Amino acid sequence: WYGEFFPGIPKIKYEGPKSTNPLAFRYYNAEEVISGKTMKDWLRFSVAFWHTFRGDGGDPFGSATKRAFRAMHANFEFMDKLGVDLWCFHDRDIAPEGDSLEESNRNLDQVVEVALELQKGTRIRPLWGTAQLFKHPRYMHGAATSPNATVFAYAAAQVKKAMDVTQLLGGQNYVFWGGREGYQSLLNTDMALELDNLARFMRLASEYKKQVGWDATLLLEPKPQEPTKHQYDWDVATTVSFLRKYGLEKEFKINVECNHATLSGHSCEHELETARINGVLGNIDANTGDPQTGWDTDQFLVDPREATLIMLAVIRNGGLGTGGFNFDAKLRRESTALVDLFYGHISGMDALARGLRNAAALLDAGALTKLREERYASWGAKGGIGPKIIAGKVGFDDLEKFALSHPDPADDVGSGSQELAEILLDMHL
Amino acid sequence: WYGEFFPGIPKIKYEGPKSTNPLAFRYYNAEEVISGKTMKDWLRFSVAFWHTFRGDGGDPFGSATKRAFRAMHANFEFMDKLGVDLWCFHDRDIAPEGDSLEESNRNLDQVVEVALELQKGTRIRPLWGTAQLFKHPRYMHGAATSPNATVFAYAAAQVKKAMDVTQLLGGQNYVFWGGREGYQSLLNTDMALELDNLARFMRLASEYKKQVGWDATLLLEPKPQEPTKHQYDWDVATTVSFLRKYGLEKEFKINVECNHATLSGHSCEHELETARINGVLGNIDANTGDPQTGWDTDQFLVDPREATLIMLAVIRNGGLGTGGFNFDAKLRRESTALVDLFYGHISGMDALARGLRNAAALLDAGALTKLREERYASWGAKGGIGPKIIAGKVGFDDLEKFALSHPDPADDVGSGSQELAEILLDMHL
Amino acid sequence: WYGEFFPGIPKIKYEGPKSTNPLAFRYYNAEEVISGKTMKDWLRFSVAFWHTFRGDGGDPFGSATKRAFRAMHANFEFMDKLGVDLWCFHDRDIAPEGDSLEESNRNLDQVVEVALELQKGTRIRPLWGTAQLFKHPRYMHGAATSPNATVFAYAAAQVKKAMDVTQLLGGQNYVFWGGREGYQSLLNTDMALELDNLARFMRLASEYKKQVGWDATLLLEPKPQEPTKHQYDWDVATTVSFLRKYGLEKEFKINVECNHATLSGHSCEHELETARINGVLGNIDANTGDPQTGWDTDQFLVDPREATLIMLAVIRNGGLGTGGFNFDAKLRRESTALVDLFYGHISGMDALARGLRNAAALLDAGALTKLREERYASWGAKGGIGPKIIAGKVGFDDLEKFALSHPDPADDVGSGSQELAEILLDMHL
Amino acid sequence: WYGEFFPGIPKIKYEGPKSTNPLAFRYYNAEEVISGKTMKDWLRFSVAFWHTFRGDGGDPFGSATKRAFRAMHANFEFMDKLGVDLWCFHDRDIAPEGDSLEESNRNLDQVVEVALELQKGTRIRPLWGTAQLFKHPRYMHGAATSPNATVFAYAAAQVKKAMDVTQLLGGQNYVFWGGREGYQSLLNTDMALELDNLARFMRLASEYKKQVGWDATLLLEPKPQEPTKHQYDWDVATTVSFLRKYGLEKEFKINVECNHATLSGHSCEHELETARINGVLGNIDANTGDPQTGWDTDQFLVDPREATLIMLAVIRNGGLGTGGFNFDAKLRRESTALVDLFYGHISGMDALARGLRNAAALLDAGALTKLREERYASWGAKGGIGPKIIAGKVGFDDLEKFALSHPDPADDVGSGSQELAEILLDMHL
Repeated sequence: WYGEFFPGIPKIKYEGPKSTNPLAFRYYNAEEVISGKTMKDWLRFSVAFWHTFRGDGGDPFGSATKRAFRAMHANFEFMDKLGVDLWCFHDRDIAPEGDSLEESNRNLDQVVEVALELQKGTRIRPLWGTAQLFKHPRYMHGAATSPNATVFAYAAAQVKKAMDVTQLLGGQNYVFWGGREGYQSLLNTDMALELDNLARFMRLASEYKKQVGWDATLLLEPKPQEPTKHQYDWDVATTVSFLRKYGLEKEFKINVECNHATLSGHSCEHELETARINGVLGNIDANTGDPQTGWDTDQFLVDPREATLIMLAVIRNGGLGTGGFNFDAKLRRESTALVDLFYGHISGMDALARGLRNAAALLDAGALTKLREERYASWGAKGGIGPKIIAGKVGFDDLEKFALSHPDPADDVGSGSQELAEILLDMHL
Repeated sequence: WYGEFFPGIPKIKYEGPKSTNPLAFRYYNAEEVISGKTMKDWLRFSVAFWHTFRGDGGDPFGSATKRAFRAMHANFEFMDKLGVDLWCFHDRDIAPEGDSLEESNRNLDQVVEVALELQKGTRIRPLWGTAQLFKHPRYMHGAATSPNATVFAYAAAQVKKAMDVTQLLGGQNYVFWGGREGYQSLLNTDMALELDNLARFMRLASEYKKQVGWDATLLLEPKPQEPTKHQYDWDVATTVSFLRKYGLEKEFKINVECNHATLSGHSCEHELETARINGVLGNIDANTGDPQTGWDTDQFLVDPREATLIMLAVIRNGGLGTGGFNFDAKLRRESTALVDLFYGHISGMDALARGLRNAAALLDAGALTKLREERYASWGAKGGIGPKIIAGKVGFDDLEKFALSHPDPADDVGSGSQELAEILLDMHL
Repeated sequence: WYGEFFPGIPKIKYEGPKSTNPLAFRYYNAEEVISGKTMKDWLRFSVAFWHTFRGDGGDPFGSATKRAFRAMHANFEFMDKLGVDLWCFHDRDIAPEGDSLEESNRNLDQVVEVALELQKGTRIRPLWGTAQLFKHPRYMHGAATSPNATVFAYAAAQVKKAMDVTQLLGGQNYVFWGGREGYQSLLNTDMALELDNLARFMRLASEYKKQVGWDATLLLEPKPQEPTKHQYDWDVATTVSFLRKYGLEKEFKINVECNHATLSGHSCEHELETARINGVLGNIDANTGDPQTGWDTDQFLVDPREATLIMLAVIRNGGLGTGGFNFDAKLRRESTALVDLFYGHISGMDALARGLRNAAALLDAGALTKLREERYASWGAKGGIGPKIIAGKVGFDDLEKFALSHPDPADDVGSGSQELAEILLDMHL
Repeated sequence: WYGEFFPGIPKIKYEGPKSTNPLAFRYYNAEEVISGKTMKDWLRFSVAFWHTFRGDGGDPFGSATKRAFRAMHANFEFMDKLGVDLWCFHDRDIAPEGDSLEESNRNLDQVVEVALELQKGTRIRPLWGTAQLFKHPRYMHGAATSPNATVFAYAAAQVKKAMDVTQLLGGQNYVFWGGREGYQSLLNTDMALELDNLARFMRLASEYKKQVGWDATLLLEPKPQEPTKHQYDWDVATTVSFLRKYGLEKEFKINVECNHATLSGHSCEHELETARINGVLGNIDANTGDPQTGWDTDQFLVDPREATLIMLAVIRNGGLGTGGFNFDAKLRRESTALVDLFYGHISGMDALARGLRNAAALLDAGALTKLREERYASWGAKGGIGPKIIAGKVGFDDLEKFALSHPDPADDVGSGSQELAEILLDMHL
């Protein structure tokens, strides 16, 4: 049956900040231009198929609480009502695992055909696709990092197929989240071999992308723990280190998930900035965790301050290129009404839209930027020691001579002015 | 007055595991050979001057509780009684900051002369030296990463001098712990510039070392937080990423501190293994934290299980080269008796000695090694797919063909046997 | 010299939300009435003498960065310019420790005289006073929980004096923060005796208050760790448990500090609500921590969402009675300009004022309250099982009969609507 | 089919510390007497039916990896081979939920009959039973704390039945773990009503126990989080506070689970000691967590040092009365061999047996006890101020007089000797 899945819920409209209608946007106005681009283009929102249409509220302590509103048809009605043009998927979420790889591939082909049909005549495309390499017991010790070489081969075949269908559906990105690429115990683990194998796998994926002429961005998604004690793509810095070690830093970008950031001990803006200054910020999985909770809660990000700091990094990055904001967030297990799906997404979209407005206004006001520039002025001061250091013209001997012949900079370092910076930010929250 | 600083305390001797004398070693027997080397050579213990002779028990909530048993003379008596030949120092711990850089340098020269004199005729040498770049307000925003270029120059001059005196004293290593190289808030921070400057500083240090013909190992010491919210050398992976980005990975090794490891969300053995498989494990600052405490407690490491896992990594690394084990650990603020200094060091030395014995016995027994080898057998199986993947002879197409024509590996992945591995370890604790 | 300590800084005025002047209030308008009380009366702001006039920026890794703008005179000028009428103090912050208890008492008397003089003709009074029982080595093992009984006596004498001068200055509250009342290791600790002694101490303090006819509120301030591994007043629930065990629950209220709340694994609103529903919410030490940092950072609370949740609890409590909001927050070590003191306090006052406006508007709008009431409707449903349970009229037998004869409530439990609740909150941020 | 479930695995025997057989006990020798009781009587080990025979290795990221070796018959064979006489169960683990409460009760009765039959002629009895009130969607908002009063009634009926069958099977304890008794968000929660209802439920359970004449111990099991953001029985102190508030402290004891302890920020020995000195230590769920992991991993406890500290508390408590050690621990998801179940339990039993031997030897040696007694000597010193304080004979006035007329105790407080205490402990590890 392909009737209406969300009866009684209209298209969600922008009604402005004073609206008291929870089924309206108060900040997200798709076509409104902010800092030279429409909000739609800055934000490129995407619905995550798995949380939205496969999430059933199960957790290790309880069974499913959600009804099966799962079909691809529901997905397209949902996107239409929400005004979102992008979606993300795992291969095994949209089509079930078969009894053999061949059958799994056939299952996938059939669903992809439906999706292609539904995409026709719309602007809807996948933001990214991925292969789910963590649920099946075959992958319990890892996929690319399995101690069993046949599992590596099997995973390669599955990724190849997932890349094929993502390309076919018009997706521009492909994501690798290393679900079980990590270890539970170092006692039984050969970490050196496993990391080498992970690099081999990534190199093959990158070569395959070129071989089939697909102009897509490949993305690694860091996460520190869960399900394993140590996931190899722990955080952005660890992932960049991995890419550099194996000469892959030009082939991959990074998909930052905010809840993964905080689990690794970093703020989300730290991870975004680390990716940005390394030239690898490619996509954002927009969610948030509970600051007092030590596992991945995948909540919708709703805090205006956090959203503003995130959008500050995105604006500084000039947007996300082929990437966007995927709602890798799920309803609470206790949120069992159909309309809750809309509340969740509206809260998330509005928070980031508000963040975009705030960040743009903060940058336009200029006071914070000025505070930073003045703080680092000595590094650009003509004729000063700063530019000489940057130019590589001085060694330790020269610097010692300079230090001995100039006053101690102690009285000259100036206040860090963090409290003032907080006020300047707050003026735009 | 240079009399006896620790009267009534004899030279600490090895009395074996049954001894009930707390002023004896029960496991550390310096000249006993374990796995082909003396315990002394495996462990290369070092006394940390700052904690041992400068630590006064002050904390943010209370003033000093310790008496001033501080002199260099006390240091040498202590090392003699403990049977330790190596020591570590910060420049400003062994000699006070003067009113100018020149005066500080002079103060340092005078103390170094005393130390040289005391070293004469002994085997005592520094394990490593370092410059203290974090206490003085001049460095409050960082040293190499200060927004003020003159501070960079000043820090360079101080490091140059600290390198000079470490070389003069016969030290074979030099450590950089980035005390305030990090940020408190991203709002007022230019992280890209600060990291570039940190790399510039490290490059200059490495060039200086070569220029003066000092054949020493330079070491970076990771720490995630404290005093700053984010320290740039967060953990081993982050530090390796930094080194690789700037082409410095051949010039530096890493000094792993166990309490820093756990603060960054990793076990100490994880950090050691990560350093080892990246070829940069150079030294260990032997201490431990409280597993329920979110800051650096710098306790003496006493847990036999943790010590065994640490020594396992060290044996796999073939020892620590020019490095060793520095006791970067301090007495609790409430431990105010002179003899407590001995108790602390004895407990730490004995724990690692016991760990060495355990780890060697575990490797000799062979069962754990065998468990691991069998687990990864498919990667070395002649004619199998594993060696072909390693040799780079197959692409995604080949792997797909292989997967489609071979049985699903699901039934073949085998148990991870973690519980058995724990028993095999426990047999040697 | 008692001239102007903050020259060039005017009285801080309310200029409204559009102001771009960082030395103005954008939300705090002292005499404006919100939900039936002036903002001033709801918030009862207080300056913390120790952070503001004694904080020097020292930390375990570095020496003082602040100048000595410390005198009581500076305090009064600061309060006047900020428009704050309340202040808090530790005895040893306002007057130095002498060579004997007698001399310490004399020192304190002299400073209190100055404060009394300065208070004359103003509305300025202490919000609360306290005795500092954690800095001096005498208290290193605890004060009321010291293994040494003479230390207990000494602490009692010091608290008696601190209570006397707080009463003399017109203070209406007295706070106990158990600086070192806790343990570093259970190995050397008799926890049962120490807790009994803590209760003995609190009983004596309460008796003394009555004996001298002082109508003040006594407050315990929970903190989980730091400086000790385990502080006995871990969190609100632990502290309430302590009070109930020893029959003290009528004699003491609780001073909730937000950064202490998050260090104990709770949100600040959780601790406030726990205190509220136990009838012991007495005062708030308004600060915040860094969500990724495992120690007490004592930052000014600036997040609008957190401030709103805090004020929601305060409004539900009908205000704080004799208590108020003490700014137990300090500038960052790197904030070394005089004006930073103002920025910090303005940011903190404005955040809570904004929170008050938001919380009042949220409650006035009514939608969130209605959502909650409907969720619990069955407990008030006339004739239903809910009221019978509450009235204690049914036992397990009756409830079993009821359950067997009524439909399974599974289909009737309803959505938790957390995402909708977040939107309703967000409408007022 | 009720044949042999664990073919090839013999009865596990004690072979002593030198054994290299992983299917033997090296420390647990059931009938050996330690400090006046057999090891069996000190330890009272119990198999947890749910983890052992229902755990399938599923986690939120992957499906089951375990085969269905589930039946009650397997349970009894397992206990026999392991030499364990006690088992624990949730009602819904041993018998499936039916379509109605009546049917669920019938299912349970049938399985209980089988268990009764199997128990016949053996010493095997349940250590404790419990009702599973967290998996079914009916309980998603809580059971006793559900916003829906009918759910409360339903839960009461289920607990009544679970108590009945535990009594029938000869169990001496009944446990309440508040699976979803807590909240996800304070925004939609009436915490005061929910806690009152939780107390009502516990009072009814206690009354029912007396009504049916069952001489059993009722136990609450603290856990801080998971599945909810805040579980009402957060830790031991919180649970004791709850019991005291509602006058239930005589009716309930506490079941301490070590992994729950560390998740709440405490060491396991802290929770045990807190329960002990409050007179409510009733049972231990023996497991451990990963110190770097922020969720419940339920691993077998294998660390000798931790096991020793746990047994120290148990010996001080004079054993656990009707309680014992339940192995609330599960194999890692990757441990899929039948024999792994034995490895896990052997490792856990042996660790605690070793801990018992160590703790008894430590107490017998006496040095640590003496260190503690000397530390607190002043509280028992005849004629000293300590006994007067304890006797309640002195007030603040008297103590002030004492302090003013006696020397400052600063020089008299003595070292805390923590490092020495660690050595004394280590001598018995």
